[in-house]
Amino acid sequence: MELYSEKINRLIEEFSRLPGIGRKSAQRLAFHVLNMPQEQAEGLAYAITDARRSVCYCKECFNLTDRELCPICASDSRNKRIIMVVENPRDLAAYEKTGKYTGVYHVLHGAISPMLGIGPNEIRLKELLLRLQQDVDEVIIATNSSLEGEATAMYISKLVKPAGIKVSRIASGIPVGGDLENIDEVTLLKALDGRTPL
Amino acid sequence: MELYSEKINRLIEEFSRLPGIGRKSAQRLAFHVLNMPQEQAEGLAYAITDARRSVCYCKECFNLTDRELCPICASDSRNKRIIMVVENPRDLAAYEKTGKYTGVYHVLHGAISPMLGIGPNEIRLKELLLRLQQDVDEVIIATNSSLEGEATAMYISKLVKPAGIKVSRIASGIPVGGDLENIDEVTLLKALDGRTPL
Repeated sequence: MELYSEKINRLIEEFSRLPGIGRKSAQRLAFHVLNMPQEQAEGLAYAITDARRSVCYCKECFNLTDRELCPICASDSRNKRIIMVVENPRDLAAYEKTGKYTGVYHVLHGAISPMLGIGPNEIRLKELLLRLQQDVDEVIIATNSSLEGEATAMYISKLVKPAGIKVSRIASGIPVGGDLENIDEVTLLKALDGRTPL
Repeated sequence: MELYSEKINRLIEEFSRLPGIGRKSAQRLAFHVLNMPQEQAEGLAYAITDARRSVCYCKECFNLTDRELCPICASDSRNKRIIMVVENPRDLAAYEKTGKYTGVYHVLHGAISPMLGIGPNEIRLKELLLRLQQDVDEVIIATNSSLEGEATAMYISKLVKPAGIKVSRIASGIPVGGDLENIDEVTLLKALDGRTPL
C-alpha cells in the first residue's frame, strides 16, 4: 500500500537525497513544506533554482558567487598579496567568520586523494599557480588536517617554494578549550612538534 | 563583509528555516544544491512547488493527499468500520509501516492543548464525529502518549462512548527491547496498570 500520494512521495524522495537527510528527516521536511503557506514554499523552490542557475565560480579565487568576482576578491580592503588556500567554500566561510583574516582565498574544490582517484589536475591547482605569477607575498595553506589535506599541502608547498614565495601551513594542535586527556595521540604529538617559545 | 553573494545567502536562509536544520546544515545543503547538476536542482524545486500546490486533505480522513481521497480511504481492502485517530500524518505513516493495521484513519492535525490555546475546535474533531454517524464498530485512539495526547484521548472517548461505539486506546508500556532499568517511572507504572493476563 502506497502511504502517500505520488507527489508527496516524490518530494520525500528528493529531500532524502540531500546530504545528512535520512528517510525520516525527509518525511518531516516534506510535511513541513506541505504545511507552509503557499508563497513560502514557492520562495524556497525559487531560491533553489535561482541560486543554482546563477551560481558560478569567482574568476580569481573560485569561491562560489553569482558575479564575476566574489565579494572578497572584489573588495578593496583585502590584501591581494596574501592568499589562503582552502579545500572548499565552507572552509573559506569558517575562516571568514573569524573576521580577522584580511587576505584573499583560493578554493581548490577538493584535495589530492590517490584513493579516490583525485589527482592534482582534478583540483584548482593550475589556477593557483597562475595567480602566483602576480605579486604575492605569502601563500597560507589551510587544507584540512586529514591525510588528503596534508598531502595536498605538501604538494602545493613543493610547487610554490621554488618561485621564492613564502609558504606557510596553519598550525595543528590542541583546539582551544580542549582537554588534553580527550585528545588523540597524533594531535598531541603534532602540538608538541609545533610548540612555540613563550 | 558578506560571505556569499546575495542569492547564495538567500538559499542558506531558506534552508535554515526548515525544522531541524541549523545554520551550518543549511550551508551544507546549499552548497550541495549548488554543486548538483542543474536538472537535479530544478527537480528538487519542482517537487516542492508541485507537491505544495496540489496537496490537499483527504475528504474522509484528512490525511494529506493530492486526490479527493487518500490511497488508504480509496482502497477496497481496508475496513472502514474501524477508525484509528492519530494526531498527524507522520503518526499515520508510523502505523502504516507496520503493515498490519487494516482499518482506516482519522488525522486530527494536532492535539488539544490549553497551554498553546488549541481547543477542540482547532483540530479535526467535528469531522470525526460526522464520520461516526456512518456504521463504525470501533474507534482506536492513537494520539501521542504526552499530556496533550492523553487529554485529547480522554476528550474523544467522552464524546464517542455515548454513541455506543467501542472506544479503545493503544497501550502504554515498556517498548519492545527496552531495559526496565532505563525506563522512567511513569512508564513503569503505566505498564503495571496495563498488565494483561498470560
